[in-house]
Amino acid sequence: MNFFYSKNIKNEKIYLDKNESNHCIKVLRYKIGDQINVVDGFGCKYLSKIIDIQSDSCELKIIQKYTSKRKIKIHLCISPTKNHKRLEWMVEKIVEIGVDRISFIKCERSIRDSVNLDRLNKIALSAMKQTQNTFLPIIDQCINFSNIFDHISSQDRFIAHLNNKENKHLNSSLNSKRSRCILIGPEGDFTDHEVSLSCEQNFIEVSLGNTRLRTETSGVVSTAILNL
Amino acid sequence: MNFFYSKNIKNEKIYLDKNESNHCIKVLRYKIGDQINVVDGFGCKYLSKIIDIQSDSCELKIIQKYTSKRKIKIHLCISPTKNHKRLEWMVEKIVEIGVDRISFIKCERSIRDSVNLDRLNKIALSAMKQTQNTFLPIIDQCINFSNIFDHISSQDRFIAHLNNKENKHLNSSLNSKRSRCILIGPEGDFTDHEVSLSCEQNFIEVSLGNTRLRTETSGVVSTAILNL
Repeated sequence: MNFFYSKNIKNEKIYLDKNESNHCIKVLRYKIGDQINVVDGFGCKYLSKIIDIQSDSCELKIIQKYTSKRKIKIHLCISPTKNHKRLEWMVEKIVEIGVDRISFIKCERSIRDSVNLDRLNKIALSAMKQTQNTFLPIIDQCINFSNIFDHISSQDRFIAHLNNKENKHLNSSLNSKRSRCILIGPEGDFTDHEVSLSCEQNFIEVSLGNTRLRTETSGVVSTAILNL
Repeated sequence: MNFFYSKNIKNEKIYLDKNESNHCIKVLRYKIGDQINVVDGFGCKYLSKIIDIQSDSCELKIIQKYTSKRKIKIHLCISPTKNHKRLEWMVEKIVEIGVDRISFIKCERSIRDSVNLDRLNKIALSAMKQTQNTFLPIIDQCINFSNIFDHISSQDRFIAHLNNKENKHLNSSLNSKRSRCILIGPEGDFTDHEVSLSCEQNFIEVSLGNTRLRTETSGVVSTAILNL
């Protein structure tokens, strides 16, 4: 069964916006009385019945609500890659794997200082629906590295970099089930200054393995490990 | 420093083939006497000096050899996705992360029964050089599911599927440092018959987490975990 998304859910009713309604009614040809699944991006899935169709919206009645919870909240803070396509697939993949928030950071060596948030949100939405996941991450526009700490509320904090070969692997640094955040730098890596700023903020330096990963691959690999 | 690749290494000499030689001499303008790094795809990296340039080849003298070993050999057996692009990025990513062999399997529900090996090998080579990794995986053309077991020599064997919610996570099923193989099915998953065939061959059923991953994402996530 197809998945739809709505933020507009109240009093046992769900309203699909223009995009979702078009997809539901015009593309997939659902009719009044048909049942569909709707997710809210916060862990709730609703089995619901179409009760009214307008030209640019659609009203549904909730039949049953299913709630799921993410065990561990994950916040990925990552420098954007030069090539936007690489960011797009990273967002698709980490939404499949599971992530609660993605913040882009402008580091000293970052090449890009903004991302196409509209496009990334669309990709995240489509990945969530495609994989029948019910969680949609918050995605933040680029933030200067020096300000990123104000946006992080996670309890366990990591910074992955290649400047120090002695860093323990992220996987062996996980020893609680508390909320987790990781910082991933740009292609040229974090500067020593950025690493020490993070350490002052109680970030633990970690490695992601023996190989040198591209930025977007680091994002995917670290999200997979933080979900373990 | 740029990385080049050669299979033709003997008696302290390295010969670059036409492609690599063109890239080295015509694109990057290296000259006789210049030093470059060459990898053999089997874990050896050679610092070497250009001693002769021909129109379609290039001869180098080895100055120093560096050898690295992969701790755990990993064999990924995966059904090809319908969209070849998705396979291509998967190959790029798992070469960065580390994999020794990739076999494509034609399962009952696979939509594709061949892959573009030339293209995948090129992508693997480029990912290896880009990330300064020294290992190039063997990539096999599609093999029928029933014959795949003849091609697997790994000691620890896993099959990831969604048919049984009780499966333990791959990560908690790893309890040795022996060679590892995992089977990943097509979009419609393995059939019960394929799962039982694998169990008869001592494959352990595992899960890759609570979310439903696309085939190519499963390939990347399982490779990352098998490397832990």
